[in-house]
Amino acid sequence: MSSIIGNKIKVSVFGQSHAKAIGVTIDGFPAGFEIDMDELGRFMERRAPGRNAFSTARKEADLPEFITGVLGNVTCGAPVSALIYNKDQHSKDYENLKKVPRPGHADYTAQVKYGGFQDVAGGGHFSGRMMAPVCIAGSMCLQYLKKQGIEVYAHIKSIGGVSDDSVDMADCTQEMLANVKTKEFPVINDDKGMEMQEVIAKAKADLDSVGGVVECVITGVPAGIGEPMFDGIENRLAQALFGIPAVKGLEFGNGFEAALLRGSENNDSFAVKDNKVVTKTNNHGGILGGITSGMPIVFRVAIKPTPSIARQQESVRLETLTEELLEIKGRHDPCIVPRAVPCVEAVAAIVMMDVIQAGEHGF
Amino acid sequence: MSSIIGNKIKVSVFGQSHAKAIGVTIDGFPAGFEIDMDELGRFMERRAPGRNAFSTARKEADLPEFITGVLGNVTCGAPVSALIYNKDQHSKDYENLKKVPRPGHADYTAQVKYGGFQDVAGGGHFSGRMMAPVCIAGSMCLQYLKKQGIEVYAHIKSIGGVSDDSVDMADCTQEMLANVKTKEFPVINDDKGMEMQEVIAKAKADLDSVGGVVECVITGVPAGIGEPMFDGIENRLAQALFGIPAVKGLEFGNGFEAALLRGSENNDSFAVKDNKVVTKTNNHGGILGGITSGMPIVFRVAIKPTPSIARQQESVRLETLTEELLEIKGRHDPCIVPRAVPCVEAVAAIVMMDVIQAGEHGF
Amino acid sequence: MSSIIGNKIKVSVFGQSHAKAIGVTIDGFPAGFEIDMDELGRFMERRAPGRNAFSTARKEADLPEFITGVLGNVTCGAPVSALIYNKDQHSKDYENLKKVPRPGHADYTAQVKYGGFQDVAGGGHFSGRMMAPVCIAGSMCLQYLKKQGIEVYAHIKSIGGVSDDSVDMADCTQEMLANVKTKEFPVINDDKGMEMQEVIAKAKADLDSVGGVVECVITGVPAGIGEPMFDGIENRLAQALFGIPAVKGLEFGNGFEAALLRGSENNDSFAVKDNKVVTKTNNHGGILGGITSGMPIVFRVAIKPTPSIARQQESVRLETLTEELLEIKGRHDPCIVPRAVPCVEAVAAIVMMDVIQAGEHGF
Amino acid sequence: MSSIIGNKIKVSVFGQSHAKAIGVTIDGFPAGFEIDMDELGRFMERRAPGRNAFSTARKEADLPEFITGVLGNVTCGAPVSALIYNKDQHSKDYENLKKVPRPGHADYTAQVKYGGFQDVAGGGHFSGRMMAPVCIAGSMCLQYLKKQGIEVYAHIKSIGGVSDDSVDMADCTQEMLANVKTKEFPVINDDKGMEMQEVIAKAKADLDSVGGVVECVITGVPAGIGEPMFDGIENRLAQALFGIPAVKGLEFGNGFEAALLRGSENNDSFAVKDNKVVTKTNNHGGILGGITSGMPIVFRVAIKPTPSIARQQESVRLETLTEELLEIKGRHDPCIVPRAVPCVEAVAAIVMMDVIQAGEHGF
Repeated sequence: MSSIIGNKIKVSVFGQSHAKAIGVTIDGFPAGFEIDMDELGRFMERRAPGRNAFSTARKEADLPEFITGVLGNVTCGAPVSALIYNKDQHSKDYENLKKVPRPGHADYTAQVKYGGFQDVAGGGHFSGRMMAPVCIAGSMCLQYLKKQGIEVYAHIKSIGGVSDDSVDMADCTQEMLANVKTKEFPVINDDKGMEMQEVIAKAKADLDSVGGVVECVITGVPAGIGEPMFDGIENRLAQALFGIPAVKGLEFGNGFEAALLRGSENNDSFAVKDNKVVTKTNNHGGILGGITSGMPIVFRVAIKPTPSIARQQESVRLETLTEELLEIKGRHDPCIVPRAVPCVEAVAAIVMMDVIQAGEHGF
Repeated sequence: MSSIIGNKIKVSVFGQSHAKAIGVTIDGFPAGFEIDMDELGRFMERRAPGRNAFSTARKEADLPEFITGVLGNVTCGAPVSALIYNKDQHSKDYENLKKVPRPGHADYTAQVKYGGFQDVAGGGHFSGRMMAPVCIAGSMCLQYLKKQGIEVYAHIKSIGGVSDDSVDMADCTQEMLANVKTKEFPVINDDKGMEMQEVIAKAKADLDSVGGVVECVITGVPAGIGEPMFDGIENRLAQALFGIPAVKGLEFGNGFEAALLRGSENNDSFAVKDNKVVTKTNNHGGILGGITSGMPIVFRVAIKPTPSIARQQESVRLETLTEELLEIKGRHDPCIVPRAVPCVEAVAAIVMMDVIQAGEHGF
Repeated sequence: MSSIIGNKIKVSVFGQSHAKAIGVTIDGFPAGFEIDMDELGRFMERRAPGRNAFSTARKEADLPEFITGVLGNVTCGAPVSALIYNKDQHSKDYENLKKVPRPGHADYTAQVKYGGFQDVAGGGHFSGRMMAPVCIAGSMCLQYLKKQGIEVYAHIKSIGGVSDDSVDMADCTQEMLANVKTKEFPVINDDKGMEMQEVIAKAKADLDSVGGVVECVITGVPAGIGEPMFDGIENRLAQALFGIPAVKGLEFGNGFEAALLRGSENNDSFAVKDNKVVTKTNNHGGILGGITSGMPIVFRVAIKPTPSIARQQESVRLETLTEELLEIKGRHDPCIVPRAVPCVEAVAAIVMMDVIQAGEHGF
Repeated sequence: MSSIIGNKIKVSVFGQSHAKAIGVTIDGFPAGFEIDMDELGRFMERRAPGRNAFSTARKEADLPEFITGVLGNVTCGAPVSALIYNKDQHSKDYENLKKVPRPGHADYTAQVKYGGFQDVAGGGHFSGRMMAPVCIAGSMCLQYLKKQGIEVYAHIKSIGGVSDDSVDMADCTQEMLANVKTKEFPVINDDKGMEMQEVIAKAKADLDSVGGVVECVITGVPAGIGEPMFDGIENRLAQALFGIPAVKGLEFGNGFEAALLRGSENNDSFAVKDNKVVTKTNNHGGILGGITSGMPIVFRVAIKPTPSIARQQESVRLETLTEELLEIKGRHDPCIVPRAVPCVEAVAAIVMMDVIQAGEHGF
């Protein structure tokens, strides 16, 4: 693995923030699928930097060029690969970071692992920018899943303690969530969104950053999908989601809240609705024993505050092992959470498409 | 995958709660390792049922019989396999559950996936009992890691809102945590442990159950271990830990708490200590960019309340799609959290040994 | 991998020739399949030792005991595991072999790899006996495939230069091959079989052994199965078939013969038969570009002469690095080829079932 | 898998013969390795078309552009990706092939698998041209292995029945084989090479093609590398080598010849040489029980005659299911064997580097 994920659909990500290009190869995507390039462009736009006041000033169109695997816009069965060429890099901003690592970043761990050969410019392979190729693959999977009746919605659940409206996990109003996709600031309740943006603006003014939580809902997945133990839907999503930079926590359904509850409160009663078995509540987040229940899959990821802050921080000069103060230059998001929203959708879609493609086989 | 996990060390778990036996095969364990069978027995004992008032009345010695891969107690390089024979099953207790699934269990999802052919007795392959063979493998890995200077400690962080003492993530007192292994109720602060046991007893008296959180610390892992993106230490642990039944959440370091903080609070300053680079705090939980920093790896898993409760619950008779009330018979833990503690250690050890074995290769 | 093979169906083999038992776990076998235990017994019998004059005198019923994954004889979706208990071992026969390795065996390579900790008795994990658990899994897969219209037939193609009748690769008479399964000596032409047995008897009388070729035909596989490049049907079969001890060569269709031909001779003309596209000849062995053509899959494996011979051989005492003559004791087949026939069928069936289960997914 | 191979080093190949580019991503290549770009260029040149009379007239420099994973020419630990841009395509040559498949090609099987969406131009993803990116990865691995003392040599063993000089498998003269790398026609005995070229010229004159055998020797691999059963060196090489288009057979050491021998002839006596255990002969081809013996690894692959011939051939119009005669246009090698030689080296090197990187871990 490493920068490759999936079994039936294998997504291989390559690039560094300031390499000639970043890109992705998708091996196993079914032939004959017409990619909606406008839709893909809109999706990429949601993650792209420079959209508003609180994201990095670096501007990149981030529009992918498909190199292989498509004829016109239709997949041909061969591995699909796409590149995003890098421009507008300011590599000089980063030169010092190999010597004095930034707190909260992978500078130090990469230095130890790669012995100083790592590409440190712009965060190298550890940059959040590596999510752009993931989003290419993710958008294709989202489009594919949608044709199968499966939709993936994420929104900002909270930033710095300010929470968006709650989703009814047992009866997710798709419309409510669907609208989020078109918003510049992806929340359900725009008033709360305004509050969050104030929190971000204040952090920025303080030369600081702030974290948050992204919530994701996947609807339309039939019951009975997934494998027990180590290859369940939770396991698969978990492995993938921790690949998004800054994710430090993950919970399904009631998650950590369940630890506070009694069984009689947390168990979801079964009921019959429209001749189908459903649960009255969805504290289990759509997965029981690793296998889908037919209820919406609901999970939340905790995203730490952007470690790059303009304030002086304490670090160590590695060569001399002397402590020194570090001031980071470069352009950074005071809050990465809004741009993480499509990334969470993309990763979830890749996993779900892989799982769906792996199929269920009886005889 | 499914019931197999690992790359270099592959652990394959088999069995159902009421099959002739449950067991495990460990492929790739290095030859020439002498298993301390007494230590393994003590470890199995920590997970075994029937130890005290709040665990199920089912008693099983759970001592494994090694079938292959060892000569005397020394591994010979061939796959190691071990069985635990099942006795003392009351299979009749479970017959109704195929028809009327228990809320919060995998009964319904297994029914859809396996078309009614699944073994429902005692929870079948979904039973928490399947953690016993995982613990065999886990104990071997723990013993192996210990010789490499790596130790894994878990304790009950909280049950039903009552919290154990906090661990200093940046300077884990190994002694404090090491003692936990020998305690019948695995907490740091025994007074808090007493409170927790009261919470459990009360839930039991109410024919109910209660959930909690297990915290785990891994010490002695050098910096520079792990891979970026999808194969980092967080990804690997995450995939494995969600294989423990009832786990619904996972966080590393500050985890969900980080979502509430600012970068200046959450970033861990680098410092020099004993001529080594350390961080002053350990909010990152020992992993940055998927790669170990040399600080202790710290994570927490949320464990939902045991879904099996003696109270009447609402369910559905699947054949007729009619709602009906269900009363579960059989023996069940009012709180699975104490027995989950060694399971968390076992799973973490299997992952870490696999990662360590995969090695780091330069030239 | 190592002793595990497969993606969708994972077969994990464990045991040593003289361990308490040898066994297999099959993860991912579909639920609800009724194993025909009589058929499985007959299949195991074909590989079992002690059937006739030219196989080892060691007698073992080799009947597996299913431990998990079945209710009655019906698979329940949980991993299926089965054991064959070892009896009748003469472990003392082997004690010297760690010190003075047998030519042509894995004694020396295992010694280097496992540092002397390997189980050398009876060949340990390298024994041909490890094919017995493979045959358990293989028989289940053969039964499953048969219900899908896919059959696997192997016969002795040649022993020591004596060749069986040729198979018409483009129009395999299934009856002709099917009869082979019921024969004690698995050839099409029994007269040739008598000749082969004379060759074996002569080798045995000379305290020697002899090799041969097994040919295998798989019918009923639809066109369009398999993946290009590294995951085609040839790749998958190749990886698995070299897991059978003593296999040193593999060819598909015309194989090495194709290297002598011109394109105009080796290319298979397309034609229409019964409204289906077929090829007039089948020099391609049913696979083009890694993908099945709908024609029978045909391959041959070369099996070296049993390395265990009663003659004196030259070896080296490893401790002292001095050359010395070695005389091997123990019971050995003068020709392993007849017993390899069901092993080839078993391995081919495991691969094909895995491939078929992995499925083809369009939208 | 599919177009991805490897565990520790993952090589992912993408592209179609007439896509914008073809390329490769190498995930897991160690950081800090300086690629000798001249050496890489020379290696690519050996596979490149248009070098002489008997290869296709299509000319491409085939020089890769490294996009990611290198700083200067030094690997940085991030996935290395490289592209070869396609020019000089004559896509119109291929338009008919979707309707009337070429005998011996993957046209028909791809049509069934991909439902007509496959890219048929130039053979699409099935083109031998896809070996160019494999050779990029292969050249890097060859350079890496060489620094570890491991070398990979291949030569044309035979073409159309004309054989090159034999290699002494037990004592491979590296110089003799090393010279082959610099020759335009890669044989040991240039007189035999002239004969082979006459065979090819004659086939070309007859509008036909001819097959052959490539032999490969890997020296310097220490004893004790590899895993038993399904993950041995033979298994791993086999899986990869059948990914080279037109390979239909593979044998190690004596291979199919061993099937004709007695044990006393085929077994390799152990001896002591320079204080090391060696075998006097190397009929086992350097691998016993899946594990290296320290002797040279020797294998041969059978390569079928190029299926593209200018002669009229019998095919079927798929839409109407009517038989018709087909004449293939385009440029084709009358013999692919010379250009297959570096491809075999490349694939062998990728596998061996992966195996070596996976390492051997004791404690």
